[in-house]
Amino acid sequence: MPQLLRVQNFNVSSDGFGAGENQSLERPFGHADPGTMFAWAGATASWPNRTAPGGSRGLDDYLTRDFAHNIGAEIMGRNKFGPQRGPWQDHDWKGWWGEEPPFHTPVFVMTHHPRPSFTLSDTTFHFVGGDPAEVLAQAREAARGKDVRLGGGAATIRQFLDADLVDTLHVAVSPAVKLGSGSRLWESPDELLDRFHCDVVPSPSGVTHHLFWRR
Amino acid sequence: MPQLLRVQNFNVSSDGFGAGENQSLERPFGHADPGTMFAWAGATASWPNRTAPGGSRGLDDYLTRDFAHNIGAEIMGRNKFGPQRGPWQDHDWKGWWGEEPPFHTPVFVMTHHPRPSFTLSDTTFHFVGGDPAEVLAQAREAARGKDVRLGGGAATIRQFLDADLVDTLHVAVSPAVKLGSGSRLWESPDELLDRFHCDVVPSPSGVTHHLFWRR
Repeated sequence: MPQLLRVQNFNVSSDGFGAGENQSLERPFGHADPGTMFAWAGATASWPNRTAPGGSRGLDDYLTRDFAHNIGAEIMGRNKFGPQRGPWQDHDWKGWWGEEPPFHTPVFVMTHHPRPSFTLSDTTFHFVGGDPAEVLAQAREAARGKDVRLGGGAATIRQFLDADLVDTLHVAVSPAVKLGSGSRLWESPDELLDRFHCDVVPSPSGVTHHLFWRR
Repeated sequence: MPQLLRVQNFNVSSDGFGAGENQSLERPFGHADPGTMFAWAGATASWPNRTAPGGSRGLDDYLTRDFAHNIGAEIMGRNKFGPQRGPWQDHDWKGWWGEEPPFHTPVFVMTHHPRPSFTLSDTTFHFVGGDPAEVLAQAREAARGKDVRLGGGAATIRQFLDADLVDTLHVAVSPAVKLGSGSRLWESPDELLDRFHCDVVPSPSGVTHHLFWRR
């Protein structure tokens, strides 16, 4: 079985932004409202952060529950890990996700600034430099035969796309959200059609799922 | 986590039949052509019987690869297991699936006619009498906390629906296939809407996925 590099449950606005401007501790997605962007996923039975019982088990739930399926490691950009930029001021910041991060695998955070690894529950965060191919090689080894999830943000996904390392992408487009500026994944999903097949699947919840795989 | 009873990847014709008339050793689906009915699933990368590499990784593949996700046992009707009817003539028949059945869990075959259990690779077939609730209780115990798949055929699914034991259903409707007679799941999917939510999702491959979950 090949070890795929997969983008899963990545959300963008109708104009192609994964997050807005001015990301901060208070506004992890900048001027974008994550409550609106991720409403489709939060409504599903399999949403990793769900605390109440219930939730839908239709199309959106298939995509949500595939998040962890056969995933052995995640790669994320430093800006997904936290709001700090530049050298680490302190090591108190341990990500947005509290004591039980939803990854349950090794996570490789791409940064030029060294920092020791640490573990929260069954998730270990490693901080790694190097180009996308080098980071992917480390993550593949840690994944022990399973696939690697590319967690974002948009700039990190674009880096791996530019290096032609991405095998599949699931991007949920929110037609009702327009951001105008921020962290851009694409001008249009058509940009990927030279290298990828794409199923465009409108969900009854309102988002349009874009499912890409290599030609 | 509740242990769900899930129908997965069940195919019906546009007029609601899961198989045609006159099922036999040569024609497991009677006058229906399984090559046409299951073409959408066979084209996917995750199709359990795939031998060649490749295959699509779009919407249909999400549904195909969910087939085994968190499943700990399967229940099937005797007519899915084989073409014989009435008392077992011999025990040579071990199902349609060869030495490596695609289930990889205990399978409970519902029949009034006793027969010893047997194992092929990592699938063990048990032959059980009793009503749907009794069989489900056995399968749940064997599934060790995981969900139970209800494998069909149509008459078996209807039995469990009548007993209100089914939690979710994924039924792929082939709009281009009309059978006229055979083993019927429904006159119309609307029959289930009093008890189930339903996402109706047309796939680019041509089938229409119906995804039901309890209200």
